[in-house]
Amino acid sequence: MDLNADLGEGFGAWRLGDDEALLDLITSANVACGFHAGDPPTMRRVCAAAAQRQVAVGAQVGYRDLAGFGRRHIAYDFAELRDEVLYQLGALNAFCRAYRTRVRYLKPHGALYHAAARDEAQAAALVAAVCDYDPELPVLCPSGSVLAQLAQGAGLRVVAEGFADRNYLPNGQLVPRSSPDALITDPHQVAGQAVRMATERSVIAIDGTVIPCAVESICLHGDTPGAVAAAELVRAALIDANTPPTPFT
Amino acid sequence: MDLNADLGEGFGAWRLGDDEALLDLITSANVACGFHAGDPPTMRRVCAAAAQRQVAVGAQVGYRDLAGFGRRHIAYDFAELRDEVLYQLGALNAFCRAYRTRVRYLKPHGALYHAAARDEAQAAALVAAVCDYDPELPVLCPSGSVLAQLAQGAGLRVVAEGFADRNYLPNGQLVPRSSPDALITDPHQVAGQAVRMATERSVIAIDGTVIPCAVESICLHGDTPGAVAAAELVRAALIDANTPPTPFT
Amino acid sequence: MDLNADLGEGFGAWRLGDDEALLDLITSANVACGFHAGDPPTMRRVCAAAAQRQVAVGAQVGYRDLAGFGRRHIAYDFAELRDEVLYQLGALNAFCRAYRTRVRYLKPHGALYHAAARDEAQAAALVAAVCDYDPELPVLCPSGSVLAQLAQGAGLRVVAEGFADRNYLPNGQLVPRSSPDALITDPHQVAGQAVRMATERSVIAIDGTVIPCAVESICLHGDTPGAVAAAELVRAALIDANTPPTPFT
Amino acid sequence: MDLNADLGEGFGAWRLGDDEALLDLITSANVACGFHAGDPPTMRRVCAAAAQRQVAVGAQVGYRDLAGFGRRHIAYDFAELRDEVLYQLGALNAFCRAYRTRVRYLKPHGALYHAAARDEAQAAALVAAVCDYDPELPVLCPSGSVLAQLAQGAGLRVVAEGFADRNYLPNGQLVPRSSPDALITDPHQVAGQAVRMATERSVIAIDGTVIPCAVESICLHGDTPGAVAAAELVRAALIDANTPPTPFT
Repeated sequence: MDLNADLGEGFGAWRLGDDEALLDLITSANVACGFHAGDPPTMRRVCAAAAQRQVAVGAQVGYRDLAGFGRRHIAYDFAELRDEVLYQLGALNAFCRAYRTRVRYLKPHGALYHAAARDEAQAAALVAAVCDYDPELPVLCPSGSVLAQLAQGAGLRVVAEGFADRNYLPNGQLVPRSSPDALITDPHQVAGQAVRMATERSVIAIDGTVIPCAVESICLHGDTPGAVAAAELVRAALIDANTPPTPFT
Repeated sequence: MDLNADLGEGFGAWRLGDDEALLDLITSANVACGFHAGDPPTMRRVCAAAAQRQVAVGAQVGYRDLAGFGRRHIAYDFAELRDEVLYQLGALNAFCRAYRTRVRYLKPHGALYHAAARDEAQAAALVAAVCDYDPELPVLCPSGSVLAQLAQGAGLRVVAEGFADRNYLPNGQLVPRSSPDALITDPHQVAGQAVRMATERSVIAIDGTVIPCAVESICLHGDTPGAVAAAELVRAALIDANTPPTPFT
Repeated sequence: MDLNADLGEGFGAWRLGDDEALLDLITSANVACGFHAGDPPTMRRVCAAAAQRQVAVGAQVGYRDLAGFGRRHIAYDFAELRDEVLYQLGALNAFCRAYRTRVRYLKPHGALYHAAARDEAQAAALVAAVCDYDPELPVLCPSGSVLAQLAQGAGLRVVAEGFADRNYLPNGQLVPRSSPDALITDPHQVAGQAVRMATERSVIAIDGTVIPCAVESICLHGDTPGAVAAAELVRAALIDANTPPTPFT
Repeated sequence: MDLNADLGEGFGAWRLGDDEALLDLITSANVACGFHAGDPPTMRRVCAAAAQRQVAVGAQVGYRDLAGFGRRHIAYDFAELRDEVLYQLGALNAFCRAYRTRVRYLKPHGALYHAAARDEAQAAALVAAVCDYDPELPVLCPSGSVLAQLAQGAGLRVVAEGFADRNYLPNGQLVPRSSPDALITDPHQVAGQAVRMATERSVIAIDGTVIPCAVESICLHGDTPGAVAAAELVRAALIDANTPPTPFT
């Protein structure tokens, strides 16, 4: 099982999350590319540290919206979004090159992640950017999303991701954040769900039913208090269960 | 003799210069990379049109200063500038990749061009970015500049550029823009200087002396009225003189 | 009848439209405030020229989106949009102050104009910003829009605007831009519609019926070829019809 | 004695310093205006909290450089800088207006603070912006600086500021940051220097000599660990010494 997390999401003088601590726990780093967060020196620092630890670097592409941290939907047209994503892919790859590696996958951030899950034009823009850049590049996204469908249709590899700290509905979707049951807050339960995902390829939905969950990567969060401790627990539990974290790439 | 010009210097709804007309005349396109000018759709458009015409694409890297068009000196420290340049190199290359080509050289823009000609830290930042990205990448800059010296010292290829529409001092430097004699405005004289540069490898300085001028590329300007007509004349004169424009790469 | 037009929509080295020519024709200048277009030196230049000609200055507020020229919808939440609009109002007013005048009205730009016509949260954000800044400030917008309704409900003055160069449906709405009949291209017809709006307070809809059109301002465009000539014709026709352009303020 | 500190220096999702804690200790808040840091919702939050506590709000104007946090020198020309400062003044004032108050003073930030202390063009730009905006507005800056001289020459009120946590040279200048003696790190010594500034109008220079120090405001820092605790000690010591903090305005 792969563990991915968002990294390099500071900008200039501002920091966010504990990149160094997470890099010791994860196998895939979603590195911000300068549009919603991330600046060139931060991108270098994260790419260097990831290369040293053999953590795979993915392009965490986002809307051009520093003020909104990429969390506000923007009604891009297809060509503009394709080109902004292609730009970010190339920019991040330059830092990977400096450390004798390369971008290994793409994962959309924030409002773009959500838009690409259901909006054909935005999902198609991501797919077109990857096809232009390197059709061997996998796309990390929820299975069943519009992005997953379009990417598969274009012959791209889709890597499905799951969430160890989110509850699931019986239909396999996440319990919406608006619900009080959305999050799993007990770190031991989070670790337990991760292990189940890795070993049984299933999760226990909010109504108690066991549902299949064939994910190749689990997304960890680093920007909340206690996040790093929770991530450590997940990692340790996966090792205990004889499914140590390994990159999907 | 190579002919280079700045292209893709619009941003969003704003346009600058006549990219299409220049692309039919030049052999090397200095494409803006989004920091002082240039946006992803413009970068794609210029890279596509350049690839079609077999015009070489160079990264016209600049300061992060859209409001100032990269024309104001910014006191970057070495590492920040290196990383911002590396970012721009990678971003532009992504568009070249989409058209089965790649960035062929680097040329700094505006205040960075001037700073790199005399400031060791800024020149070194450009050199370090190129070394990180691809040590085979030539640097287009004035011969004798600090940038030229540091680039050569680092083993990079330096391509010296000259100006057909600028008068030269007997010491080989340009007549400063503050002087009334700085510019050559008669298009036929401009074409004549270009031909002399290409055939004799010399220019006639402002005092009438003939001085050596071993440039491999001539910089044309596209953003002034009559610029395209002047560029056409230069191109035609070079062809007439049996030194048709050819890329230095 | 008031004549309004968008001005100051350049940014840095980039220019758009012919501000000087329009300032001699209009009575109200919608000045861009730096978020979708407009930079401080441009804002000063337009405010100075408007003050000299006694043209009223309005805040043409837009989304924070230079790359998209404010033409892409952004899903701002209420408080963020209110505060970004309030910021722009204050910024523009500083330049009016320098010329012993002040911002006289607010008009949203581009995608914000369209969003505020139908989206309650975005319209309410504009209204809240005006109430915070100066409840005496009129809002220039289409009559019947959600913005007009909320502004009136909050006790703000609404100034309805019409379009001399757009065809109207029998229900008083504009023929959508997607239709081939959307635009009136014959300048004499444009001037004729302006005169009818000013003198009869009506327009002839696309089906030939005469419909009421109680607008206080007509919006002219300055960024298309022939726009200034068309604006001159409208102005001359209004003077001929004894309804010379006068500011609504 | 007035106590001033930099506030509102986050941007979007990013936070910096503890605005709330400092607002309970200081009498003048230097609020970032969106160019080097600060966004509209943050500006509102700080202005609201300052108004509630009757803390004076000053415009902490900076270069247009979010990526560099306004700490890199930018070679603005006079008119551009004047207009960017005027823009920031107006923008911040809009938030003060919303809470029935107004901007009470101007203080330049970072590299602009340093440039204005010795560069005539940049200092003159700040003075011109204040004159355009409101010639009653005081300028907070080091006494003896070029900015102080030009401001006084233009008839503006200059409020001199001192630093309780910095050592002074016998000539009244600060010990440069490059020296190991630059900072006073013992909080009790910091408080002692603040009390001496307030009661004796002097400081003890690094060589032991007592030198006059006629400052009206002491600058506190909020962005380092222990900064708030140190500020509390300064405030308490001033109250103990019967010179409780009071705004200079």
